[in-house]
Amino acid sequence: MSDKPLILVVNDDGYEALGLAAMVEIAKEFGEVVVVAPDRVRSAMGHAITMDLPLHLKKYKEEDGVQYWRTNGTPVDCVKLGMKVVLKGRKVDLVLSGINHGCNSSVSVIYSGTMGAAIEASFLTNAVGLSLADYAPDADFTAAKYFGKKIIKQVLEKGLPPQVSLNVNFPKCTIEEIQGLKVTRQTQGYWDEILEPMTDPYGRTQYWYVGHLVDTDHKEDSCEWALKHNFVSIQPVHYDMTAYHYMNEVKYLEDVR
Amino acid sequence: MSDKPLILVVNDDGYEALGLAAMVEIAKEFGEVVVVAPDRVRSAMGHAITMDLPLHLKKYKEEDGVQYWRTNGTPVDCVKLGMKVVLKGRKVDLVLSGINHGCNSSVSVIYSGTMGAAIEASFLTNAVGLSLADYAPDADFTAAKYFGKKIIKQVLEKGLPPQVSLNVNFPKCTIEEIQGLKVTRQTQGYWDEILEPMTDPYGRTQYWYVGHLVDTDHKEDSCEWALKHNFVSIQPVHYDMTAYHYMNEVKYLEDVR
Repeated sequence: MSDKPLILVVNDDGYEALGLAAMVEIAKEFGEVVVVAPDRVRSAMGHAITMDLPLHLKKYKEEDGVQYWRTNGTPVDCVKLGMKVVLKGRKVDLVLSGINHGCNSSVSVIYSGTMGAAIEASFLTNAVGLSLADYAPDADFTAAKYFGKKIIKQVLEKGLPPQVSLNVNFPKCTIEEIQGLKVTRQTQGYWDEILEPMTDPYGRTQYWYVGHLVDTDHKEDSCEWALKHNFVSIQPVHYDMTAYHYMNEVKYLEDVR
Repeated sequence: MSDKPLILVVNDDGYEALGLAAMVEIAKEFGEVVVVAPDRVRSAMGHAITMDLPLHLKKYKEEDGVQYWRTNGTPVDCVKLGMKVVLKGRKVDLVLSGINHGCNSSVSVIYSGTMGAAIEASFLTNAVGLSLADYAPDADFTAAKYFGKKIIKQVLEKGLPPQVSLNVNFPKCTIEEIQGLKVTRQTQGYWDEILEPMTDPYGRTQYWYVGHLVDTDHKEDSCEWALKHNFVSIQPVHYDMTAYHYMNEVKYLEDVR
């Protein structure tokens, strides 16, 4: 125990990811750090939790005062296990999720394990998801670390409103190339996939996703616009999925007999 | 091919669930029906898609003109496989997800595979998720079918706005006990879990979720209130997670240097 902020670090790329190490590097500057990460890559797990299997949790390392745990669970499970089991209900000041290898702009926020974990954490504390628009396992996190530190310092000082997390996305470029930081809203769009049939060695048909994001938005206040123009995108995120704009119109259904 | 509406039915409780049969029973009254369901229970998968395994897809039955397919994928995968592979891009008029064994009120909408699938479908067509507040495998879907039909008839006639789906939840009661239909918003709340350690036969510690929904809302326009008072809850849902109410305030981060 200490009077430094207590920071839980999670991710969806698994405990061996370079992005996790980058996140720990940032977190260590600000507080006591505990890591709970999936034991393998769990990308695109959204807000999934594990209900059909028992969850396991193993402390695999302690280094520079940082505890490292891994689990067979999803990113959201990492948050719940971290808070309830590893930290046994201690007050967590901040949950950091990432740094993700790959962009979580636009509708990717609902597929993203990184943001699933951040949203889960936002129910109980401050939470920030960080993602870099580079899927490479050896991606360069230099600019993400540089600007990530500045953002996280502010979040620790000022806090976030209840149930609001931040979805921070970094363009793939150098510190010098970054044009600035920009508060954005979720870009209108969807993932369009090709599911080309392939044949496995046993003659069975199998499918893999090969897709791309369709941006139907293109406006200057959208996260995609920001990233395309080398801005760091900062999107405040909440978890209320109600389509308020349709609530009045749909009231006709109350009269259905 | 026919001029009847084309309806894709998916679920998260798996192809053997009673709730899926109840949904097919409704769908058959309105159009040509194709079913794509997970090959096992995939509850609480949220918006997860399968990226780490090849997807398989098998037609296991054709009965009364309805095609039945199952897959090792998630509920969202069922929508994508159904639209892209089984229906090969034919225009789908409606996607129905459920009927779920268990309630999807409040924050459960983001954990729910049923609603994950409905939200995915809403990117491209009309989509409705139906859930019954009864987890029992032999739950009684009589009232859900009775009111579900009335709602779906209207949705097919009037359509839904782009990217809006409906999250319909039925209380556990008889047709006579239903107090009416009520358009609601997502109840403020979160799931509080106990992760009690257990020991497996090999001496390893394992954890399972045992949780309950904490309702921090209690207001009359919330979905939880409606269900507690035996109303059918109809929540319009969209996928924009931006916390618009915090966008102006968080702009201070744009000035961080």
